[in-house]
Amino acid sequence: MRAVPAYAAERPNGPLVKTTVRRRALGEHDIVIDIKYTGICHTDLHQVAEDWGAGTFPMVPGHEIAGVVGEVGPGVTRWQVGDRVGVGCFVDSCRTCDNCRAGLQQYCTGEGGTVFTYNNTGRDGLPTYGGYSAELVVDEAYALRIPDSLPLDAAAPLLCAGITLYSPLAHWGAGPGTKVAVVGLGGLGHLGVKLAHAMGAEVTVLSQSLRKREDGLRFGADDYRATSDPATFTELAGAFDLIVNTVSADLDLTAYLGLLRVDGTLVQLGAPAEPVRLNAGALLSARRSLAGSQIGGLPQTQEMLDFCGEHGITADIELIRAEQINEAFRRLEEGDVRYRFVIDAATI
Amino acid sequence: MRAVPAYAAERPNGPLVKTTVRRRALGEHDIVIDIKYTGICHTDLHQVAEDWGAGTFPMVPGHEIAGVVGEVGPGVTRWQVGDRVGVGCFVDSCRTCDNCRAGLQQYCTGEGGTVFTYNNTGRDGLPTYGGYSAELVVDEAYALRIPDSLPLDAAAPLLCAGITLYSPLAHWGAGPGTKVAVVGLGGLGHLGVKLAHAMGAEVTVLSQSLRKREDGLRFGADDYRATSDPATFTELAGAFDLIVNTVSADLDLTAYLGLLRVDGTLVQLGAPAEPVRLNAGALLSARRSLAGSQIGGLPQTQEMLDFCGEHGITADIELIRAEQINEAFRRLEEGDVRYRFVIDAATI
Repeated sequence: MRAVPAYAAERPNGPLVKTTVRRRALGEHDIVIDIKYTGICHTDLHQVAEDWGAGTFPMVPGHEIAGVVGEVGPGVTRWQVGDRVGVGCFVDSCRTCDNCRAGLQQYCTGEGGTVFTYNNTGRDGLPTYGGYSAELVVDEAYALRIPDSLPLDAAAPLLCAGITLYSPLAHWGAGPGTKVAVVGLGGLGHLGVKLAHAMGAEVTVLSQSLRKREDGLRFGADDYRATSDPATFTELAGAFDLIVNTVSADLDLTAYLGLLRVDGTLVQLGAPAEPVRLNAGALLSARRSLAGSQIGGLPQTQEMLDFCGEHGITADIELIRAEQINEAFRRLEEGDVRYRFVIDAATI
Repeated sequence: MRAVPAYAAERPNGPLVKTTVRRRALGEHDIVIDIKYTGICHTDLHQVAEDWGAGTFPMVPGHEIAGVVGEVGPGVTRWQVGDRVGVGCFVDSCRTCDNCRAGLQQYCTGEGGTVFTYNNTGRDGLPTYGGYSAELVVDEAYALRIPDSLPLDAAAPLLCAGITLYSPLAHWGAGPGTKVAVVGLGGLGHLGVKLAHAMGAEVTVLSQSLRKREDGLRFGADDYRATSDPATFTELAGAFDLIVNTVSADLDLTAYLGLLRVDGTLVQLGAPAEPVRLNAGALLSARRSLAGSQIGGLPQTQEMLDFCGEHGITADIELIRAEQINEAFRRLEEGDVRYRFVIDAATI
């Protein structure tokens, strides 16, 4: 076991405090990642608060991890010390179920299922600890290459926020000739705009107000509409092939479905705590779909990173020191960040 | 104008009584169909009861129409007197919008939209009257050829019930190697089983009880499960590529979504009066979709009829005389029909 400095919540809803956690010793196929930067995802707030169920404490959040390979196990073939690597929302899976074999490790249905990067139990039986930490020990197959053209700090959020948007955009065919709407311009949405624009789609932001309009257009949006204005829903009726919804709040999904043309899809990227409601007629009247999507598998996450490398896409970030994590949590809760907090792991 | 014998409801929820309605005179591109048989669809009950909004009375229901061409207008090129033809849920559309040009007339977004076969207003400004009638005047482009191998009485329900199932099965790829579930074994469901089986899919019926199990297996189902048994939802978790839901009642969609594998789709074919509810997590956890589908366009309806002709697929029907329509409505309301009532139009 190796002792590693980290920031952890010691109890549900507790503050993040400096501590030390024990990670497994370097195994045959493991690498040690010297973590350089870790993004703060809204999931981290939910997990610490136990919004989605009981957590295991101490909890070290963080699943937007960018760093450099520090050590390699004797059987490692993919990586060398010094390689720039990232780890996202999961660090292992069964590797044998249909979904794993199809590269959809995030939907693993095998024994133990997907092993999430923190607040989970690894196949080694140990609790998993995330990226608010100085080092991570991970199987070499679950690390991704970060292109040299991308700075590690602004690339870190790609590992969760980036793939969360890239995967549905790619899966449902965003590209030249398609019209895509991104609902919400936060940490997820701002990457959705950049990615959909780079894919060649015509992009509209649907945001509560026009407050961030300038930013949206700068990220590549062709149009920016306020959903507080009822005219948005009449003027854009039947306009979109694809809507990606980054907002977990209870939206009027029937109204948003009406913005889709025939065969259009509205993809939920977050799950509100309460059941969602919609009039099925909004689906039937134009063969529309309401779908859900959750991050992406290893091959597609690498594809996303390579795509971002080619197009120079990273998150707009606010870099913080580790001792500012609790303040960042508070500000993120209030939506006060443009657009992603990233922790400088050198300060952990 | 031509006077045509028909059965109509003279007021909301009123009984169907024998009457005469006036149809337009034969136009340049019109044909007159001597109606031989008309199916009774659950929609007919809803429309007469104004469940979906105010109706126009007298109302002549019926949109599962099979007959023979009786007269042709001077500009008609597709049909000759004596041809076996059918008309389904619509008799016209704008013909110029993207959806019409794509052969998806049921989703017409042009001026006036899809003109439904009854309880609607035609592009000629006249009310439309359906198939509980001796004759229909219709533009030649909106009639479909019924293969010689199919009896007209049992083929009539294909025009609505048949295409309502064929379209989503074809659109979402039912075929060899896929697992399809059909929810509900009524007028729609029994055709869903026959069609999915003929397409080569492995078919499971999900019905409240096992009461109609023998029928389901005879129609081609490989398995038949009771949804009243909670074990159905655990044993079949993640089993299906496609679920077509023929039940308009308020089902626990979250439970049904759990029966889909990754990328599976649950298609609603009816719209309950109240909004549907589901946990978005059931979509996210396996990139599932909830979709809706409404009948089919002209090219696909012809494709369906040809497919049924090749495979010998028709509805299981109970043929009735026109004076039995009110009794049939009552029995249909109670689900007491195996599996579709068809009116012998010679008795109108």
